[in-house]
Amino acid sequence: MSFKLAFIGFGRVGQSLAGLLNRKRNELKERYDLEPTVVGVSDIQLGSVMDPEGLDLPRLLQHARREGSLRGISAPEKGLSSLDTIRRSSADLVIEVTWSNLADAEPGLSHIRTALKKGCHVVTSNKGPIALKLRELQGLADGNGVQLGFEGTVLSGTPAIRLGREALLGGEILSIEGILNGTTNYILSEMERDVSYEEALEEAKRLGYAEADPTADVEAWDPTAKIVILANALMDCDLRIGDVEREGITGLSKDDLMKAIKQDRRVRLVARAVRTRDGVRASCKPEEIPLTSLLANIHGVTNAVVFGTDVQDEVALIGPGAGPQSAGYALLTDLIAIGRSMKR
Amino acid sequence: MSFKLAFIGFGRVGQSLAGLLNRKRNELKERYDLEPTVVGVSDIQLGSVMDPEGLDLPRLLQHARREGSLRGISAPEKGLSSLDTIRRSSADLVIEVTWSNLADAEPGLSHIRTALKKGCHVVTSNKGPIALKLRELQGLADGNGVQLGFEGTVLSGTPAIRLGREALLGGEILSIEGILNGTTNYILSEMERDVSYEEALEEAKRLGYAEADPTADVEAWDPTAKIVILANALMDCDLRIGDVEREGITGLSKDDLMKAIKQDRRVRLVARAVRTRDGVRASCKPEEIPLTSLLANIHGVTNAVVFGTDVQDEVALIGPGAGPQSAGYALLTDLIAIGRSMKR
Repeated sequence: MSFKLAFIGFGRVGQSLAGLLNRKRNELKERYDLEPTVVGVSDIQLGSVMDPEGLDLPRLLQHARREGSLRGISAPEKGLSSLDTIRRSSADLVIEVTWSNLADAEPGLSHIRTALKKGCHVVTSNKGPIALKLRELQGLADGNGVQLGFEGTVLSGTPAIRLGREALLGGEILSIEGILNGTTNYILSEMERDVSYEEALEEAKRLGYAEADPTADVEAWDPTAKIVILANALMDCDLRIGDVEREGITGLSKDDLMKAIKQDRRVRLVARAVRTRDGVRASCKPEEIPLTSLLANIHGVTNAVVFGTDVQDEVALIGPGAGPQSAGYALLTDLIAIGRSMKR
Repeated sequence: MSFKLAFIGFGRVGQSLAGLLNRKRNELKERYDLEPTVVGVSDIQLGSVMDPEGLDLPRLLQHARREGSLRGISAPEKGLSSLDTIRRSSADLVIEVTWSNLADAEPGLSHIRTALKKGCHVVTSNKGPIALKLRELQGLADGNGVQLGFEGTVLSGTPAIRLGREALLGGEILSIEGILNGTTNYILSEMERDVSYEEALEEAKRLGYAEADPTADVEAWDPTAKIVILANALMDCDLRIGDVEREGITGLSKDDLMKAIKQDRRVRLVARAVRTRDGVRASCKPEEIPLTSLLANIHGVTNAVVFGTDVQDEVALIGPGAGPQSAGYALLTDLIAIGRSMKR
């Protein structure tokens, strides 16, 4: 089955998905009867190309990686804005992978709204629009008979949302707790080993785990957005980021962490959502947890999420929460799930 | 949507599913548009009842639990054998939850074959038929346009198979390793704390974790069957139980375990399947693993499985591997998945 795609954003994550689509071309056809074709790419830095007959994926990747520009690619339409690319392309599915913004979720929010209203499926790893507007966007998708995939917004390619939605069928999720940010977990893991916060942060930057401005991570905005997404997606609620009790890790010293260890405890930045009589309450803050608990044994950049349900003891999922291949893979799982459902 | 079910076996696991179906009646209708009706039950101890108009679920449970017999229930047809119940019932789906047998998989194998050939979907938690004959049974299901659910054969209600099949879409599973037997993991966890094998086994029996004859667990037959099921279901191979390098825990002393701890290692009964150039190689035997590894931090009756794929770092799933509610829940997830697909 032919499956037309448009990339809105073609940076690290978009290229990662494009690389997987290229590498797994035969597998996608044989296992899932899917033959994806890229009919448009629009990236604010690389430029924009559109061809309803399909663009050459290896060439796109080559130009993006080697030349840092798509301008050398010949195509019937070039230079369209991202919104015009969505409006005028023949895509069945739009891949929204522009930068994340937790203030007003733009430009991703407008991209996703425009695509859904036009009757395009959307897959995204962009946290902003999903953390801020999931209910609206899901309503738009349902109303237009299309699907919205956002597995990559939490735990990257580790399929936390699909585990909750597709695997824990018939179970009611009563609590979610997790380590949802690898950068801060790396810093805390280092600080336990007698490294200062500043040194650990520098090392995290050097390794590519932390950004130049680490605020989103160390002030817990990123994991706060993720617990909002998980709760809203899996616990049938409509939390806002401001509803979450949030505290970052900048107030912690290595002495705090080493003292905890001596008491058989570890400090972890724990994101939590719990169903109460009055709805779902969420927090994301440093907690001292017993060494024997699962989350205390999550080290470095690994992420973990633990689901409590009404049907059995807790189920935990552990895996990478970042990495370019992992982010592209999350989008691929959504894309396959949507492609499969289109054939039915 | 009406959905007719027949229970073949109505012991602890079957009753657990029946209890969940009863308790979640409204939720199943509202969330999944499923209205399950039980049209037949056949159990070698409790007896057999069949009614195409539907049997009263609370009454079935009450008779099974309080009177240890279904003979007091009035129904149009009574006393049929399990095979005749399958042949003559109007069920859309057969729930096969008789006892497990890894030698010839009977009587479960005949039950499942008969149901699939008749065009009934099947869900089962019975390891024997799936460990011995998955390929044949899957072929029968495909050939008859029905589905075979067996989530409950490994990790009980912790959805390992669905994680591999439905969540890790488009990823190729290259390795599976896990702690797939709670009884032996409990015994090993105790032995590390200076408890002898015999004492730990007795305690496991007292707590209901181990059976009177513990051979299937302590000689590793049970986790061996489970790694065969996982590998065959998720790695596209056709392993037999005899292909697995198997070793139980009866040769271990508490000194072995405590000596390992002193070297920052733990002994765990690890089941493993790895894709090699010549196919999939599997083992299930005690291994000394570093304290820092995920499996070394799985204690007591908890189970864990770690998937290695071609697309990202390892993904681990941890949760209960047993328990009556958990076993019933595994069957419920299969039942919902099949019910949803019938509506499409």
